[in-house]
Amino acid sequence: MEEEVPPTRILIAVNPSSIKGYPHASISSRTAFEWAVEKVVRSNTRGFVLLFLHVQVPDEDGFDDMDSIYASPDDFKRMSEREKTRGLHLLEFFVERCNQIGLPCEAWVKKGDPKEVICSEVKRVQPDLLVVGCRGLGPFQRVFVGTVSEFCVKHADCPVVTIKRKAGEAPQDPVED
Amino acid sequence: MEEEVPPTRILIAVNPSSIKGYPHASISSRTAFEWAVEKVVRSNTRGFVLLFLHVQVPDEDGFDDMDSIYASPDDFKRMSEREKTRGLHLLEFFVERCNQIGLPCEAWVKKGDPKEVICSEVKRVQPDLLVVGCRGLGPFQRVFVGTVSEFCVKHADCPVVTIKRKAGEAPQDPVED
Repeated sequence: MEEEVPPTRILIAVNPSSIKGYPHASISSRTAFEWAVEKVVRSNTRGFVLLFLHVQVPDEDGFDDMDSIYASPDDFKRMSEREKTRGLHLLEFFVERCNQIGLPCEAWVKKGDPKEVICSEVKRVQPDLLVVGCRGLGPFQRVFVGTVSEFCVKHADCPVVTIKRKAGEAPQDPVED
Repeated sequence: MEEEVPPTRILIAVNPSSIKGYPHASISSRTAFEWAVEKVVRSNTRGFVLLFLHVQVPDEDGFDDMDSIYASPDDFKRMSEREKTRGLHLLEFFVERCNQIGLPCEAWVKKGDPKEVICSEVKRVQPDLLVVGCRGLGPFQRVFVGTVSEFCVKHADCPVVTIKRKAGEAPQDPVED
């Protein structure tokens, strides 16, 4: 039966951790991914395709972890190469885990405002479900951080599920991820 | 493998149609159910349990489709019996469809304010996913109707997915369901 109907396509929006020295994927991205695999896909790897989208915010990523001064066009080019590499590393993490369990997947990077880009990619690829991790911030923190997940729940043209981090996995500063 | 890990428990909040003469389940309840079966469960019926919760609003249900005058305690008793029967009929619709495809399920009725009861039942039964149908109303209609789904997305203690009716299935008056 699984061969006759097209697989369920789950789009997962992923982003790198904001914690210094923390490798690769954010806590909430990993939580979202693990939820989708454990609770939805389960052992039925032939019935699903995971789609990983990472939206890079060019400026933020540049300032994030570099103290360098950009003085020449080459400096910017190097920065942009480095960004690209980081984005690919992030996706590699998820793609490798899918490969390990034989779960088909696709992954790509886009630049722009995450909430806008996620919604426009939903329009384009028309997934059956969008999974977005979230930090589970209180209302006070939310005002300053803004949440991509809330925007997607309202505006994305497909069913959206928001996965909060487990209580034990939140870092000391809940704004970090 | 599916036997070793406990099944994924999906709670679906269902309600009867508000359209006069329309039998049983609302359009958005059916859409939510069909989405869960087609896109999540698929052929993996041993990996899932569906939990159907119908929250009855006693007053609303009473006024909904009866022009009778309640003059004696017996009248109220009959009304309450009738309500109960309607609630069971609604659940029967979903339970039968699960039985047909061999998908384990449970179903029950609670009384009260749907949004509050759904969230307290989530706390009690701790499902892996809550699926709520919604009418996909515009902001103007939403102010007057209020939406259970928006409340659950914010307050339920588990991942929540909201399923909108398909465009072709919306009745003439979108407030109807």
